[in-house]
Amino acid sequence: MSFSEKELEKKILKKIRNVPNFPKEGIQFKDISTLVKDVDGLKDSVNFLYEKYRDKGITKVAAIEARGYIFGGALAIKMGAGFVMMRKPGKLPYKTLSETYELEYGTDSIEMHVDGIEKGDKVLIFDDLLATGGTAKAACNLVEKAGGEVAGVGFVIELTGSLHGRDKLVGYDVFALVKIPVEE
Amino acid sequence: MSFSEKELEKKILKKIRNVPNFPKEGIQFKDISTLVKDVDGLKDSVNFLYEKYRDKGITKVAAIEARGYIFGGALAIKMGAGFVMMRKPGKLPYKTLSETYELEYGTDSIEMHVDGIEKGDKVLIFDDLLATGGTAKAACNLVEKAGGEVAGVGFVIELTGSLHGRDKLVGYDVFALVKIPVEE
Repeated sequence: MSFSEKELEKKILKKIRNVPNFPKEGIQFKDISTLVKDVDGLKDSVNFLYEKYRDKGITKVAAIEARGYIFGGALAIKMGAGFVMMRKPGKLPYKTLSETYELEYGTDSIEMHVDGIEKGDKVLIFDDLLATGGTAKAACNLVEKAGGEVAGVGFVIELTGSLHGRDKLVGYDVFALVKIPVEE
Repeated sequence: MSFSEKELEKKILKKIRNVPNFPKEGIQFKDISTLVKDVDGLKDSVNFLYEKYRDKGITKVAAIEARGYIFGGALAIKMGAGFVMMRKPGKLPYKTLSETYELEYGTDSIEMHVDGIEKGDKVLIFDDLLATGGTAKAACNLVEKAGGEVAGVGFVIELTGSLHGRDKLVGYDVFALVKIPVEE
């Protein structure tokens, strides 16, 4: 990481708010609403991601709802790529592909339209937060099921420490704008 | 509307897919996933909106989850404005303002962080679809509660005919990229 990237990372990190005990007691929630309501915060984040992925031949940005869309739409336009929605079950109107993944207690699913990704697409998967990596891995599976190639998995924030999100994404090109250690 | 705007409207309209009977029997759902996965579809939509609002002194784009974020983030960057999330209840981590509005059966609510909009902000409210106008009107109320001024209410699609969404937004500057009549 170059000097200017380090500076940019610090600038972005400062604009992320910590909200204690959300969504439940003991969780330190990383709130990007303070980053995106800042004119430079959102722009710098998208530009930083663009620099990272501009030479990868990305044809589609597949973003995970809802916060991933804020950055993903702008990034897709900047890269000359199409934008694909990854959504919770039952939200997409057309025929879908679905992937189920495990949570601490129970399971969850993520869906994508069957025609969102085509064979040969080079796909950047994007979400705001890498925590346990379950959703992102399911998104990778969806893209590959549709015949696409995962060219990168990008995040605004990576929670480092006990969650080991990267371990679920071994073999993929994973990048996060900022890293925040999980407080134990 | 100029000749080139008419052409652009036609181009955008062609990229929106009709999905019959979603989310329930008899509803013709207007699917923008085919618009945004098209490189020009998303870019043209954002540029068209930008041209419409560039001279209004917009300081914040407040978009309604989730599809509104795809366009809203890119639009905010292009206009040099901040981006504010409007979300379903319980999704935002920090202190919120809330507005309740009526549905055909029952009510729904929409929330925004208390510090999303500041006094004096000139706000563009953005969503993908104007149907009955209930959500958009609640979003206007939220902005005004926070001391902001609603400088415009923008949509990708306006459903015209029996829904009368515009009637709920009288007094506001309402604009939609395309108009689609509701089939009865």
